[in-house]
Amino acid sequence: MAEKIVKVGLVGFGTVGTGVAKLIIEDADSIAAKIGLRLELACVVDIDTKSARPVKLPDGILTDDLNRLLDDDTIQIGIEMIGGIDTAKQVQLKILEAGKDVVTANKALLAEYGNELYRAAHKNNRCIAFEASCAGGIPIISAIRTGLTANNITAMYGIVNGTCNYILTQMSEDRSQKSEVRRQKSEIRVCPLSFSEALAQAQEKGYAEADPTLDISGGDSAHKLAILSSIAFGYEIALDDVFVEGIEAVSKDDIRYGGEMGYCLKLLAIAERTEGRGQRTEDREQRTELLTSDFRHLTSGISLRVHPSFIAEDNPLARVKGPFNAISIFGSAVGQVMYYGRGAGMMPTASAVVADIIDVALGNSATTFRHLNLRPRSQTVPLIEKIDNLVSRFYIRIMCKDQPGVIAQWSRVLADHQISISGALQHEDIGPDNTVPVVIATHPTQQKNITAALEDMEKLDVIGGKPVCIRIVDIPEDKD
Amino acid sequence: MAEKIVKVGLVGFGTVGTGVAKLIIEDADSIAAKIGLRLELACVVDIDTKSARPVKLPDGILTDDLNRLLDDDTIQIGIEMIGGIDTAKQVQLKILEAGKDVVTANKALLAEYGNELYRAAHKNNRCIAFEASCAGGIPIISAIRTGLTANNITAMYGIVNGTCNYILTQMSEDRSQKSEVRRQKSEIRVCPLSFSEALAQAQEKGYAEADPTLDISGGDSAHKLAILSSIAFGYEIALDDVFVEGIEAVSKDDIRYGGEMGYCLKLLAIAERTEGRGQRTEDREQRTELLTSDFRHLTSGISLRVHPSFIAEDNPLARVKGPFNAISIFGSAVGQVMYYGRGAGMMPTASAVVADIIDVALGNSATTFRHLNLRPRSQTVPLIEKIDNLVSRFYIRIMCKDQPGVIAQWSRVLADHQISISGALQHEDIGPDNTVPVVIATHPTQQKNITAALEDMEKLDVIGGKPVCIRIVDIPEDKD
Repeated sequence: MAEKIVKVGLVGFGTVGTGVAKLIIEDADSIAAKIGLRLELACVVDIDTKSARPVKLPDGILTDDLNRLLDDDTIQIGIEMIGGIDTAKQVQLKILEAGKDVVTANKALLAEYGNELYRAAHKNNRCIAFEASCAGGIPIISAIRTGLTANNITAMYGIVNGTCNYILTQMSEDRSQKSEVRRQKSEIRVCPLSFSEALAQAQEKGYAEADPTLDISGGDSAHKLAILSSIAFGYEIALDDVFVEGIEAVSKDDIRYGGEMGYCLKLLAIAERTEGRGQRTEDREQRTELLTSDFRHLTSGISLRVHPSFIAEDNPLARVKGPFNAISIFGSAVGQVMYYGRGAGMMPTASAVVADIIDVALGNSATTFRHLNLRPRSQTVPLIEKIDNLVSRFYIRIMCKDQPGVIAQWSRVLADHQISISGALQHEDIGPDNTVPVVIATHPTQQKNITAALEDMEKLDVIGGKPVCIRIVDIPEDKD
Repeated sequence: MAEKIVKVGLVGFGTVGTGVAKLIIEDADSIAAKIGLRLELACVVDIDTKSARPVKLPDGILTDDLNRLLDDDTIQIGIEMIGGIDTAKQVQLKILEAGKDVVTANKALLAEYGNELYRAAHKNNRCIAFEASCAGGIPIISAIRTGLTANNITAMYGIVNGTCNYILTQMSEDRSQKSEVRRQKSEIRVCPLSFSEALAQAQEKGYAEADPTLDISGGDSAHKLAILSSIAFGYEIALDDVFVEGIEAVSKDDIRYGGEMGYCLKLLAIAERTEGRGQRTEDREQRTELLTSDFRHLTSGISLRVHPSFIAEDNPLARVKGPFNAISIFGSAVGQVMYYGRGAGMMPTASAVVADIIDVALGNSATTFRHLNLRPRSQTVPLIEKIDNLVSRFYIRIMCKDQPGVIAQWSRVLADHQISISGALQHEDIGPDNTVPVVIATHPTQQKNITAALEDMEKLDVIGGKPVCIRIVDIPEDKD
């Protein structure tokens, strides 16, 4: 079989763009041997054509003129690696209008303007491949779109932001038990860091941006959840459908107390089908177009949320450490599956981008994109559960004055709100004003009950400061 | 877009066949909505047309006549769910010759005759899709062939047999630490079972066949490893390239002693690129056709093996329990990725089969199959490492007489063979003839040194019975 040559153009020559250029250039032979087609990097567009990057480009292909890509009819695929919203969106639209397919890792853009871009692609009979937008090196989008097609996906639980997971890992004590033999060769046990220490360390190691807001606020995870859940459930999901809470306020004390109760703290992105208890979000009415639909579930609801979550320490997700990502998916036929890998970084992301380029070049992406996405239907819209209606277990920490009758008071408040306690620990640590931390785990209850109870508790004289409240997520266990 | 109808025929109406029929029939609407094409089950062929199965077939499609499928030109895809070798092979060949694509889950057949079948498919310009052959519900083949294409895969470590993993899990004590709060709701701690008790329980639960030989001997894992490694490395791998040891001889005492040293016992299927220390296996000479090749690695070797393996208890694979499967893959660009899910069972396997049917129906499988497989090349053949040359750490258990000078004797034997000890524990358990178990973990050494040392040890008067030896597999850790 003669080798087919596929010319591609790259826009954005930053970290990931450099990784992509590197893989295309250095692995051209190896990819040609595997796939029977040869990728050729025809141009690289960036406003900065001067700075040195750790890859040697062929002479004359680096340019600051996007038209070099748009006007070259031999280039089939445009790779948008600019990031950000406005410029990237214009570039993607121009590439599609020039009759080229788009490969991108830009989750922020897709989460905000995906539907508009998908429509532009369909109009131009082109496709957009975006595997690298979610969980970098983990081929999660392909898994949902192809491997799990025969399933109705009922829930997803993901650690999809490496920055937050790195920070939370550094804030957690390593509680794993090691025997003498293994301990000899294991590194010295590291003490847990505070949030700001862990953030500083993440920045030092390149896992966090100088401005880490988008990551630690949960915003980046929300972008990914919007993309993944729209594919998994077949609905047009908007970013504001996702409830978001970041990790900025998490303290290492709560991680430790939760650990003593058998839980591990993770920033989880959660999508769950529900019984449809909730109400519509305000702006749902206009949304009558659905990406695709599983008719049997149109009446059920979907809960979409990103927040710090205590999960059982023996859950496989609890073992996901440092900058790694993992996503646990429950399907009607397959049961539980989990995917684990690096969610970011130059080469893991580049690996996903190049896999997408190959998939587009082979023509597979076009088929999948045509069939699996953006088929507008006039259907009733799905119910997005309001966070107030969420039924969950909760971890609560209050700082109590060390005096008689305190337990009676806070337990009275919980009882008044029909909240039942599954466990409680009073610690001997001393807090501000001679208070002691009391840690409570509840049985399942609605979020609005907890919110009301916490407000009442805060008014008690015997409690100092604002109670801390973290959701306990009981990830279903598929076993035996 | 008008719905395209794709007619399929099923051969083999056993457990998985029934699951496939069920999904196709019951999910036709849902799949049509997602994919834009409607699967229609046109015939089901089985010699047993009488027994009741838990699915309602349309009237008149169940038959014992394979020609109903072969002669029907409207049927595009034949699904072989017979299992076994001879009949299944003939059926697949006939389906291909009749101009239809094949979907199969038959790992034993593919491991033995895959190359012959792939050639027949290419000759007839058809494809064979076999995602379900390895690790059931985990879309591992698709992950290797598409998501990780841009990577040179350097190693794979897999728990790919649910029967063995279930048995080993039942033979292991649950050593996870649970706090008071969580312990309240956790089930009563179960005592570890012996191998035969665990096997009986697995059979009772339907996780093991009446004749469990293929599973517990490691043979089934070897089949899967041969398929996965041929795709991952691009070489034609034969079943006899894989070194195999089963779990029949494993005792729960060794699992416990290993646990005390920080290890967890798993039956691992391992494929690793090596530096090419080893020699060719005898019959390698003739094998000049390679599936595909990564030129840069032609000179390196590949180690392929299935055996009981002690792995660090904090490795994510150690958390894979019961009938679940998981595969950890190391890629040059992506680093470590891991996939986890049910490796067998009616619906998980059916889920993978139907995903394959959809992929074939969309035309994606044809592209992938054409490009990714069986491109004969005249190249030097890869080196398959001999097990004798394996460099590994080892767990050794000897039963020593409880008398002075014993340690001096066995440690002398190890020293004579240049084997260095990384840890040792003497237990107070009493064995036969008043012996006590001594457990030793070694530093890395060659298999042939260990084999020779064990032979010498067995000759010592102070040691009773045959030493037990289990390989310790230090799975590389990709972190930070």
